[in-house]
Amino acid sequence: MSPSSQVRFGIIGCAEIARKVSRAMNLCPNATLHAVASRTLAKAQAFATANSLPPTTVLYGTYEALLDDPDIDAVYIPLPTSLHLSWAIATARKKKHVLLEKPCAVNVTELDQIISACEENGVQFMDCTMWVHHPRSRVMADFFSDPKRFGQLKFIRTCFNYCGGNDFLENDIRVQPDLDPLGTLGDAGWYCIRACLFAANYQLPKFATALRNPVYNNAGVVISCGASLLWENGAVATFNCSFLAHLTMDFAAVGTNGSLNVTDFVIPYEEKSASLSILSNSNFDEMSLGWTEKPTEQVVKTELPQEVFMVKEFSTLVNGIKNHGLSPEKKWPTITRKTQLIIDAIVASFSRGFEPVEVY
Amino acid sequence: MSPSSQVRFGIIGCAEIARKVSRAMNLCPNATLHAVASRTLAKAQAFATANSLPPTTVLYGTYEALLDDPDIDAVYIPLPTSLHLSWAIATARKKKHVLLEKPCAVNVTELDQIISACEENGVQFMDCTMWVHHPRSRVMADFFSDPKRFGQLKFIRTCFNYCGGNDFLENDIRVQPDLDPLGTLGDAGWYCIRACLFAANYQLPKFATALRNPVYNNAGVVISCGASLLWENGAVATFNCSFLAHLTMDFAAVGTNGSLNVTDFVIPYEEKSASLSILSNSNFDEMSLGWTEKPTEQVVKTELPQEVFMVKEFSTLVNGIKNHGLSPEKKWPTITRKTQLIIDAIVASFSRGFEPVEVY
Repeated sequence: MSPSSQVRFGIIGCAEIARKVSRAMNLCPNATLHAVASRTLAKAQAFATANSLPPTTVLYGTYEALLDDPDIDAVYIPLPTSLHLSWAIATARKKKHVLLEKPCAVNVTELDQIISACEENGVQFMDCTMWVHHPRSRVMADFFSDPKRFGQLKFIRTCFNYCGGNDFLENDIRVQPDLDPLGTLGDAGWYCIRACLFAANYQLPKFATALRNPVYNNAGVVISCGASLLWENGAVATFNCSFLAHLTMDFAAVGTNGSLNVTDFVIPYEEKSASLSILSNSNFDEMSLGWTEKPTEQVVKTELPQEVFMVKEFSTLVNGIKNHGLSPEKKWPTITRKTQLIIDAIVASFSRGFEPVEVY
Repeated sequence: MSPSSQVRFGIIGCAEIARKVSRAMNLCPNATLHAVASRTLAKAQAFATANSLPPTTVLYGTYEALLDDPDIDAVYIPLPTSLHLSWAIATARKKKHVLLEKPCAVNVTELDQIISACEENGVQFMDCTMWVHHPRSRVMADFFSDPKRFGQLKFIRTCFNYCGGNDFLENDIRVQPDLDPLGTLGDAGWYCIRACLFAANYQLPKFATALRNPVYNNAGVVISCGASLLWENGAVATFNCSFLAHLTMDFAAVGTNGSLNVTDFVIPYEEKSASLSILSNSNFDEMSLGWTEKPTEQVVKTELPQEVFMVKEFSTLVNGIKNHGLSPEKKWPTITRKTQLIIDAIVASFSRGFEPVEVY
């Protein structure tokens, strides 16, 4: 691979998740981590040391300085959500491609400004939902689209929970109203909503209705909630997301002819292998003593972790724009926008007495 | 075991499910199938032949004749739901113990009349929810009650679906408004609701809210629906039940310290072995690349199918009353009543624009 096809990344903000993504950039065949910026040079240096970044990595003490670096093609932005609007737009205006952490914006109005800025400046936009890039997700998508093995989608049940602990629940960025006002809905819920869209082949549901159990922290940020989504064809999804329950990442979908169960859909139990349980065309056996078919466990091996596949896909698109005159791929901002639209509808449902809110 | 400790059963009604339960009675160490009644003697004879019942089985052409048989201790009633009120009460008045198919009644008012008749006549009442008698359910209950491995209950997600097919959806007893007016909610939903109660240690939820997706057949019977249940301590359950989706029997519960997944909770895939997947005290590993602990699959072997354990438990209680002067066990009608209360609340939620309905 020629050096010019290597996409050179900058990272603005040294969040915990940046450790994982910077590692992915250095593992990725068509990407390089070129520079890291924090609000002080000392913080950027500490991050570089803690993560054993190569000494060639350029370090900056301001985000602006990184955005001005002409050697950078693309910027990964793991900043708190409320800062995404200004920094993602600033990145796009510097003609740098935008890899943006989720939740991408505090609402779809702000997201649209970010996406418009990317479009106007001809740069690729992608959010950091890693799991959809895992090879397992391709196997899941093939199953969902198979009329014989899965059929018409009927039900989705998903959840993403983890126990934040007391310090987390009061002090983490994800529960600060001025930083991540969407709380668990924007964090864990983002993945559940994406799973619902994924199973529905990215068709938007018609209505979102919040479940009547949101829990808020003292600052008024939601730390546990759920919702149901209803599609025009009758398919229904329910999900829960929470900082108050044991680590759970279930994704189950039922069609007319089959069903799928995955219990680690956001982050597989281990890096190099992930499994899914599928069942098709089973029925009660004679006298309903058992089932005619049992689920089969399908294991998907992978040499690279899912976040590397994400960086690789993004870098391939960036390379196409940079070196081959291609246009930015609209699929990714479109999916991001659908996810954010559903979040907005659920937030509206919270404030409208848990009534169903149309998603559009 | 002395002959007198053998509980002698009669069956009124030759429903498909009676095949499975009559087999269970003949496999059960403390029960005997003494007699079968249908609306005609020919039907009873056909049932006896089709199921290879021993020639000693007494056959009746009316239900009344069976209830008058002094050799019968207990009666299993697999009749359509709308007939439960009169026949369960008639059975109790004949001082015969009542093993009643689910849904037990069309509403809790009728159920209360049945339970009262059993109490007044000193006979045991139990519904036919088989899965709670499987040895696996004891393992599940132990897990749920373990503060270290499971902790405080937070979420329950369950479903029971199967594809009825066109003929079933118009003609089966379970979709006739004058026979089984509760449709899939009383049939498949019954099990989901029981699972929710089971995970909550049989504490009633405070509110039941129907999901906004019920589907009705031409006769107005619900053939697909769902609901959320909300407990006073914040625990939340969501479930779907349907005659329109592929066979699925998922039961997942999440506590503060652990989670459980079972995908065949109503009828295990096979008779002699059933499994559950449990996980406790897991967390993200370093950099959230994977999980610190993975779920473990626990296999529960059993020599007898779950319906035999149900008949055995019921017969043990009947034997205690009959031969040892014990009182009927109130646990079983209490659990039945809680299940029916939730069904009634969901039906009320359907008719009240999917508003939450208090369960009491």
